[in-house]
Amino acid sequence: MADLLDFPGLENFLRAALAEDIGTGDVTTTCCVPEDARSRGVFRAKESGVICGIGLIARVYALVSADVAVKPLVADGAHVAKGDIIAEIEGASRAVLTGERVALNVLQRLSGIATRTAQAVATVSGTRARIADTRKTTPGMRVLEKYAVRCGGGSNHRFGLSDGILIKDNHIAAAGGITNAVNAARLNAPHTLKIEVEVETEAQLDEALAAGADIIMLDNMTIPQMAAAVARVAGRALTEASGNMGDRDLREVAQTGVDIISIGALTHTVRAMDISLKF
Amino acid sequence: MADLLDFPGLENFLRAALAEDIGTGDVTTTCCVPEDARSRGVFRAKESGVICGIGLIARVYALVSADVAVKPLVADGAHVAKGDIIAEIEGASRAVLTGERVALNVLQRLSGIATRTAQAVATVSGTRARIADTRKTTPGMRVLEKYAVRCGGGSNHRFGLSDGILIKDNHIAAAGGITNAVNAARLNAPHTLKIEVEVETEAQLDEALAAGADIIMLDNMTIPQMAAAVARVAGRALTEASGNMGDRDLREVAQTGVDIISIGALTHTVRAMDISLKF
Amino acid sequence: MADLLDFPGLENFLRAALAEDIGTGDVTTTCCVPEDARSRGVFRAKESGVICGIGLIARVYALVSADVAVKPLVADGAHVAKGDIIAEIEGASRAVLTGERVALNVLQRLSGIATRTAQAVATVSGTRARIADTRKTTPGMRVLEKYAVRCGGGSNHRFGLSDGILIKDNHIAAAGGITNAVNAARLNAPHTLKIEVEVETEAQLDEALAAGADIIMLDNMTIPQMAAAVARVAGRALTEASGNMGDRDLREVAQTGVDIISIGALTHTVRAMDISLKF
Amino acid sequence: MADLLDFPGLENFLRAALAEDIGTGDVTTTCCVPEDARSRGVFRAKESGVICGIGLIARVYALVSADVAVKPLVADGAHVAKGDIIAEIEGASRAVLTGERVALNVLQRLSGIATRTAQAVATVSGTRARIADTRKTTPGMRVLEKYAVRCGGGSNHRFGLSDGILIKDNHIAAAGGITNAVNAARLNAPHTLKIEVEVETEAQLDEALAAGADIIMLDNMTIPQMAAAVARVAGRALTEASGNMGDRDLREVAQTGVDIISIGALTHTVRAMDISLKF
Amino acid sequence: MADLLDFPGLENFLRAALAEDIGTGDVTTTCCVPEDARSRGVFRAKESGVICGIGLIARVYALVSADVAVKPLVADGAHVAKGDIIAEIEGASRAVLTGERVALNVLQRLSGIATRTAQAVATVSGTRARIADTRKTTPGMRVLEKYAVRCGGGSNHRFGLSDGILIKDNHIAAAGGITNAVNAARLNAPHTLKIEVEVETEAQLDEALAAGADIIMLDNMTIPQMAAAVARVAGRALTEASGNMGDRDLREVAQTGVDIISIGALTHTVRAMDISLKF
Amino acid sequence: MADLLDFPGLENFLRAALAEDIGTGDVTTTCCVPEDARSRGVFRAKESGVICGIGLIARVYALVSADVAVKPLVADGAHVAKGDIIAEIEGASRAVLTGERVALNVLQRLSGIATRTAQAVATVSGTRARIADTRKTTPGMRVLEKYAVRCGGGSNHRFGLSDGILIKDNHIAAAGGITNAVNAARLNAPHTLKIEVEVETEAQLDEALAAGADIIMLDNMTIPQMAAAVARVAGRALTEASGNMGDRDLREVAQTGVDIISIGALTHTVRAMDISLKF
Repeated sequence: MADLLDFPGLENFLRAALAEDIGTGDVTTTCCVPEDARSRGVFRAKESGVICGIGLIARVYALVSADVAVKPLVADGAHVAKGDIIAEIEGASRAVLTGERVALNVLQRLSGIATRTAQAVATVSGTRARIADTRKTTPGMRVLEKYAVRCGGGSNHRFGLSDGILIKDNHIAAAGGITNAVNAARLNAPHTLKIEVEVETEAQLDEALAAGADIIMLDNMTIPQMAAAVARVAGRALTEASGNMGDRDLREVAQTGVDIISIGALTHTVRAMDISLKF
Repeated sequence: MADLLDFPGLENFLRAALAEDIGTGDVTTTCCVPEDARSRGVFRAKESGVICGIGLIARVYALVSADVAVKPLVADGAHVAKGDIIAEIEGASRAVLTGERVALNVLQRLSGIATRTAQAVATVSGTRARIADTRKTTPGMRVLEKYAVRCGGGSNHRFGLSDGILIKDNHIAAAGGITNAVNAARLNAPHTLKIEVEVETEAQLDEALAAGADIIMLDNMTIPQMAAAVARVAGRALTEASGNMGDRDLREVAQTGVDIISIGALTHTVRAMDISLKF
Repeated sequence: MADLLDFPGLENFLRAALAEDIGTGDVTTTCCVPEDARSRGVFRAKESGVICGIGLIARVYALVSADVAVKPLVADGAHVAKGDIIAEIEGASRAVLTGERVALNVLQRLSGIATRTAQAVATVSGTRARIADTRKTTPGMRVLEKYAVRCGGGSNHRFGLSDGILIKDNHIAAAGGITNAVNAARLNAPHTLKIEVEVETEAQLDEALAAGADIIMLDNMTIPQMAAAVARVAGRALTEASGNMGDRDLREVAQTGVDIISIGALTHTVRAMDISLKF
Repeated sequence: MADLLDFPGLENFLRAALAEDIGTGDVTTTCCVPEDARSRGVFRAKESGVICGIGLIARVYALVSADVAVKPLVADGAHVAKGDIIAEIEGASRAVLTGERVALNVLQRLSGIATRTAQAVATVSGTRARIADTRKTTPGMRVLEKYAVRCGGGSNHRFGLSDGILIKDNHIAAAGGITNAVNAARLNAPHTLKIEVEVETEAQLDEALAAGADIIMLDNMTIPQMAAAVARVAGRALTEASGNMGDRDLREVAQTGVDIISIGALTHTVRAMDISLKF
Repeated sequence: MADLLDFPGLENFLRAALAEDIGTGDVTTTCCVPEDARSRGVFRAKESGVICGIGLIARVYALVSADVAVKPLVADGAHVAKGDIIAEIEGASRAVLTGERVALNVLQRLSGIATRTAQAVATVSGTRARIADTRKTTPGMRVLEKYAVRCGGGSNHRFGLSDGILIKDNHIAAAGGITNAVNAARLNAPHTLKIEVEVETEAQLDEALAAGADIIMLDNMTIPQMAAAVARVAGRALTEASGNMGDRDLREVAQTGVDIISIGALTHTVRAMDISLKF
Repeated sequence: MADLLDFPGLENFLRAALAEDIGTGDVTTTCCVPEDARSRGVFRAKESGVICGIGLIARVYALVSADVAVKPLVADGAHVAKGDIIAEIEGASRAVLTGERVALNVLQRLSGIATRTAQAVATVSGTRARIADTRKTTPGMRVLEKYAVRCGGGSNHRFGLSDGILIKDNHIAAAGGITNAVNAARLNAPHTLKIEVEVETEAQLDEALAAGADIIMLDNMTIPQMAAAVARVAGRALTEASGNMGDRDLREVAQTGVDIISIGALTHTVRAMDISLKF
């Protein structure tokens, strides 16, 4: 399950997180904990969920001290139960304490996203629909959050404005219609990108298909509208259900036959998974 | 209400967020929208809540183009109703579209935190308790998220490990007891910082007070335990209730007489407020 | 023609270029040129070519001094003749002199790429082939160099490893065949990306088409092989000719009917266009 | 031959190059290549030339993964023949594939510069002239490109505006003559820098020598003009031939007796040496 | 004595220092010293003093080369005599020479601060006063300089504007009096920070105490004024003597009974300790 | 006098200084000073001296707020008397207070260096000696500190290891003698740099001159030794007196006829000039 975790920018992200938390130094620990004290502890799930970011614990601590060893006991994507020990840590007490909060903040947030994604994936299991994320991610954490979606069994939509073409209402209006917009994209964009068009009506759907759209985004449609749209597309393009999907009945949406359900709430509404470090 | 929003690092944070989203360029917009097209739109609350980050819209767009004007219609901390227009925007269509997602991601997340904080503050109104945040924030966004807590009427706990002394169980164990730990902190830390001690028992409470702790953190106590602890402190130190406060009955906690209730869930479990940009 | 020039990272790139050249200060200019001296000059093409980066002159100087005004006289993509004045400059002499080399280095290099691209585009005019770039760009300048390709009338291939799927021999071997590789990509990659497969034989071509490849890269083929491959694809996928295309007869290649000819030499073998700043 | 390759800024340069290419992740490799696959390959010269940057292969891969080993088989400055293996690589397949393009882009470009420089050096062999570079380098790559010039047997001119004094026509005009300019430089610049003056006429030459110039730049002169100037200088200063030297008959120039021939084309007109990585 | 030396930002500080000194390369060393030459040397105190930053020597060299070993012979805070060897170094000659100046510049400056601090601490020994620093530090070196103060036996005042509340005359005027200012701080600032108020008169002192100030800064007072103020405070708050303390008789000040004497000159007027590297 | 103050890196230096001081925000000012309060003040010299960095006040405040105006009343290099007003400031009170310490820290330190330099320059006035700095500068501030030396009437030695050749004892030993070292430098270093050789004996002096050294550094010599050395050089090279010059009688040194006296103490032993901001 683990893949792509090691991207350019990861180290800088973790360094910034540590700098933000440590500031000019962990004054409590420096005052109270002897330099040669050592600690041993475990990271434990305090509720059930899907783990994401287990490898980041070691990454965080590597930036704090050379004298901390972390041993993950589960892999990213693992479903764990309340009480499960997911990693062990041993090392200089000062470093263990100083890095604790950043390690937990990252791990809990990503595991929260993976857990929610896994629930959505389970809800649509047996249908053709795949659960996908959006660009409604936390600024600075997009690559990690999209990795968490994959750990939960979901798929990734485009990572940003440069690796996918998504023609929305404003683009259509500015280009002078769907046909113009699709043609402009085909002519000027890299040929390696598919062209997705957001449609709200049957007429738009037909125009998009005729123009050669590769993906049709069905925006804020009712279940019957979606089902009708999927039938009308008839395999000529991928279909994607979108628009407040976090509040919809996902199984009902999936049963319309759409290929993708993209859900902003996977990342914009996050509940951190409860994980603790105990000595 | 607006204060401290302009901190060193804000510009870099926004630049990174834009870089993350725009990547090598907004290919859809460049292909479909003429360079000289202009747009006018409004940011609208799609649900009620407390706004935070209204000034950041202009900050984001200033980094995208010199040709976008943003006019906020409410101030940070404002309670808005569903449907309220909170800001207007006008400018080059390309820039308006390219900056939209980052502006919304920041604004929605911070407003979500402010809204949740305001609910907690309202719950304890009339008591002496103030609602405070923790260090369980999103990596990279701590200063902004703590600002959001203030916009919601809450207070800030320390911003990181260097601007507050918080002696927890591990520090106590390493120092050889509460008395030793408090003395070490008083001797070696800047005299400008108060000393807070986390206690779980009455004996610890007494030792902390005797050692001269300025703040007593009451960790994971029942309501009767908290009430007893507050009574025992009797004004000799500030008292802070802590430990899964996001799941507790806050009014009940406040009525024990504690001075501060610190709630990790204010920032670790975020529900983005629904805000849209419409043309 | 001008588009996408203003990407995140541009300012940092220019700042770094200036820092690299100016170091701790332009000692000659500081010693010899009075602080209040003013200069007026022109940027002139010393040979014919296609201009790219004309807007960067002003960008460079904006980082050197607020007291320099640059007025472009042509747009990016313009074909100019030897002797044509392409921009005017006026301002503090010190700043004009200090920024000169960086401005010229960027402008000459990009215009060299645009010029070469335009020659390739002209060579294949009237055919269906579009001329595309590759990832064989100068480290640090990829977005600018790909912009130069567009200014010369060419198209962009993927910008990097994350915005396009290109399955090559090593991927095929590792995945256990073309079919496996294409299926893995379809299952795990964002649905917004097309799948391109590099083939060397007819059998591979057939397998790639059967697996549903969107683009077929014809690698290092002879003209008859290419023509046969294009015929065999018969419109079921895009076809791309690749492999030392900088040394091939492009018109001959184009006449095989391929959709795209990707040429590494557009960016890896650069001849700077001769442009000077004269006072 | 290898020297000075490890300069401050090298790691950042390579990190930026990798970030530019990898973006949010190598999606093809992640999808198609198993995490535990291993590869072994060789870097091979596909044409004869002078190698530069062989040590950078390992540097690049060190930033991609700890699980790749690179073994250089030649040193920088080595003349290799078509088909020569210049380095071996072994490691995790994913990492080997992901880092390939950046490693090659750097190595090919620098080797191209070294090769061209070596040709120029060979052309003037037996004369007193040394071949030098200029500031017409690729933005961001100056230190590396000047290293490549040394690997090709050439010399470096100043690295930037702060480590050499070069008084050109505009400086002379602003200072009120060559004498004034040279005096100003001697008075105000660090005494560790030589003073070079660009001259176009015999009168300017005489004035520069009288003022005490250490180096005379002979700009855009004919062969007879150069020879006369060198004779007139008579060893009182170094002489440097300059101005489109990339298009001149270098041996003819060298035989005028000049000490240095500086050639912008060594770095502004680059032909990447053809080098491949094969498994 | 050594504590907190390893803060986020240290590596960047040292990298910047090396980049500033090495620029595009150590040209003398590269020309004159063979690549395989090795050196062995010692860092020796050329005057008596208190060492600070001994661990930074190894940190600096780790960024220069993997082939240099540094062995500290004393700990930070050690009092050394003229002639004492404080560290040994062995490694590649080029690297040893290239890193020498930066290592010494940091070590000498910090040791100078520690030495001066130790003198001040000795002057007040036996009194209750502790010697503290201020924010009058070298831009970019604050954390290191405050560490040097601790190595000399001194204490740290706040590290910056966010980790301490210090209400001065301008704040008082703007807030409409001391009482208003203190109340505003208590209401809006984190409860973890003490409130310090600068007073110049007895009336201000009384108002500050009545408002609940935790620390009273006695600014630019005579000895009798200070003594009177300390008596008036009578233990209800900490007292801090401030204002050109670098020019005052510190023992006399200490004997007034103040708790803290803060001295800007500890860091704004630095005399580097004389330390050399000899081979 | 003002020159070269605006170098690449200045803005980053000031941003870092502000970040270091402001941290997560100026909590005192935010709590106590109303957002709309305005202030007017003056920067005043509290002792006589030479001003350096007057333009940096505005630079600092430009990074704090757009709502602060600074008006310098003297130029860099001006000699001011105790009590002189050197600049006026007006603007938002919060911003004025928040930026005060950084502005003063920079201004006081640079003015301290300029003042000390001016004293040294005055001491040798009438002789041929110029006062120069060294590389013993504050890490991160070298360009500013060397500018301060110029403001005080001094000259700059090389800025770092890449813009000057200085062959010291260790280089000589490694190269196998002075002649070898000088030849190696002449052959391999940029021809734009002079070659300086440190000598301790008459024999070394002779060898350095014979090898063609451009500058002779007379290290730690007595006055008679220096005078003899200067006589022996007889104008064939520049002579530079070096070695603890901060503790020597500079006039006596100058009267030996040396061209340059380089003094590390100009920058390694700094006494900040006393300057205040008063409202």
